[in-house]
Amino acid sequence: MSRTTRQIVLAARPQGVPQTADFRIEDAPLAEPGEGEVLVRNLWLSVDPYMRIAMGEEGSLHGTVPLGDPISGGAVGEVIASRAEALPKGSFVMSRAHGWREAYVVPAADLVPVDPATGPVQRHLGLYGLTGITAWGGVRGVLDPQPGETVFVNAAAGAVGSVAVQLAKAAGARVIASAGSAEKGAWLTGALGADQFIDYREEDVAARLAEIAPSGLDAAFDNVGGNQLEILLDAMAPRGRIALCGAIARYDGAYRAGPANLFAAIEKHVSLTGFNAGFYFDRAGEIISEFAALERAGKLVVAETVAHGLDAMPGAFIDLLAGRSRGKMLVKL
Amino acid sequence: MSRTTRQIVLAARPQGVPQTADFRIEDAPLAEPGEGEVLVRNLWLSVDPYMRIAMGEEGSLHGTVPLGDPISGGAVGEVIASRAEALPKGSFVMSRAHGWREAYVVPAADLVPVDPATGPVQRHLGLYGLTGITAWGGVRGVLDPQPGETVFVNAAAGAVGSVAVQLAKAAGARVIASAGSAEKGAWLTGALGADQFIDYREEDVAARLAEIAPSGLDAAFDNVGGNQLEILLDAMAPRGRIALCGAIARYDGAYRAGPANLFAAIEKHVSLTGFNAGFYFDRAGEIISEFAALERAGKLVVAETVAHGLDAMPGAFIDLLAGRSRGKMLVKL
Repeated sequence: MSRTTRQIVLAARPQGVPQTADFRIEDAPLAEPGEGEVLVRNLWLSVDPYMRIAMGEEGSLHGTVPLGDPISGGAVGEVIASRAEALPKGSFVMSRAHGWREAYVVPAADLVPVDPATGPVQRHLGLYGLTGITAWGGVRGVLDPQPGETVFVNAAAGAVGSVAVQLAKAAGARVIASAGSAEKGAWLTGALGADQFIDYREEDVAARLAEIAPSGLDAAFDNVGGNQLEILLDAMAPRGRIALCGAIARYDGAYRAGPANLFAAIEKHVSLTGFNAGFYFDRAGEIISEFAALERAGKLVVAETVAHGLDAMPGAFIDLLAGRSRGKMLVKL
Repeated sequence: MSRTTRQIVLAARPQGVPQTADFRIEDAPLAEPGEGEVLVRNLWLSVDPYMRIAMGEEGSLHGTVPLGDPISGGAVGEVIASRAEALPKGSFVMSRAHGWREAYVVPAADLVPVDPATGPVQRHLGLYGLTGITAWGGVRGVLDPQPGETVFVNAAAGAVGSVAVQLAKAAGARVIASAGSAEKGAWLTGALGADQFIDYREEDVAARLAEIAPSGLDAAFDNVGGNQLEILLDAMAPRGRIALCGAIARYDGAYRAGPANLFAAIEKHVSLTGFNAGFYFDRAGEIISEFAALERAGKLVVAETVAHGLDAMPGAFIDLLAGRSRGKMLVKL
């Protein structure tokens, strides 16, 4: 018996915003698991903005996908055939590089076991995974907001931003959130507890910040870069801290240009600290415990936007980059 | 009896590198001191790169000098006539805005008394003043180097840089210093104790850093900005810290352009923290005590380059910006 899987390959390097034609679904053969290997059927695929970087020409910390190769990405799946004692059939596992496909065969050692008792298994792709750890790294690892401080979060309705808003609130800060629609704003100031909302598509962000934070921002979680970062540099209070989270920004060069007003940092003793989740993986256990405690205390709303079926993956990715999701974007197979 | 003073006014806004024709020496009347005022004869004038900013079109934290007005700057002088009990004739005083002239009359409350017992009075313009406090702010306030860490300092033979090198060494770090001549290099690795020297005019700084700090820089004190900052971003170790000291860089727009590789900070969890001495003035007493203790322990070489007479001031300023000084640049009247 020979098996195959459907998988999504990179058909063309996206020019600017990705199009569905940049992706192609094809069948690929699956080997039988060898000694120490498992066959995994994916249940949930993670949709992340950083994947856009790996589709571009230039290398990055995530590597570059060769044209015609299957695209990488996180996924949670179930072991359906096993020749590895550590991961019997029926185990749940997370992979960082075997998303965008229905099934795959790898050595068990390449996978992270997922305990379904911790919470719904897809949480390991969001709150308990890359996006949650990214939010924790920016808010707790970098910004460390104190009670009463004013914290700004942009792209606040996204997977990272929505957790960052809630972590800053949990720390006792006043939170100003920005996103791109009134509907997202209502959600941010409602369910997520943000104190104020700025619609960056409809409002002048700099003018609104001057109005609602006249003493300046103590801390800012920047998911955007580019012109947004310049606005933040001007809006920071003395000794303000900015966390640079490059998730969405790089594909259109936002963090490449560099802020034209960096001198404002010198005048105000402002820090800009870049970070990514990789620097916090070693603290994942502690971070997940904290998230679980916050959720139990009713201080953390877990938001997921779910599309269905492998064919929906390219569209979900395009929607994500266009800001048409809320919280963590997932594809359920 | 009516008195006058010779003073230097801004004759033209410098285009790029200042020229002597941008300055004019003229006589100005001096009022007799009124109640609470003192007449001060300057003894030492401070020559600082930040003054270049105030000569440009654009405002800054130091303000802009109107064309034809006397130029501002630090100075130490002696009270030669007093109608203020707090500052009798013979007192030494420091002013932040009455340099570039031979004498002036101001309210005593505008001046900082200088105790000649602390050290030579001109120290308050350098080590005990703006440049020393700037170096302390960058090294101790921002970078906080730990024993065994690798710290880079550029413009290392300058007033700020030469103190920064020695503070980093005193903290137990390995120090890589860069400057623009072999003579400065010999001084930096000799008297000042730097471990390695890079001649930025003769060598490829990026290549040399890769060679002598293959694991990356833990901390960097950037006096330069622009392309130098881009080289540093690439050369930093994971979780590296960069202190942005804008003293020399801004006049040619170095910190305006912003680094094109800011994304490197995100990939490596690198921080860039701007600062200026103003954020550390409230700790001046503690800082000066620390400098005095280091000097007594033979761990701090105080370097001064001295020109003589008010007429030498524009040339000293031009020499400073051109890198033709070592340590603190002063004019002795």
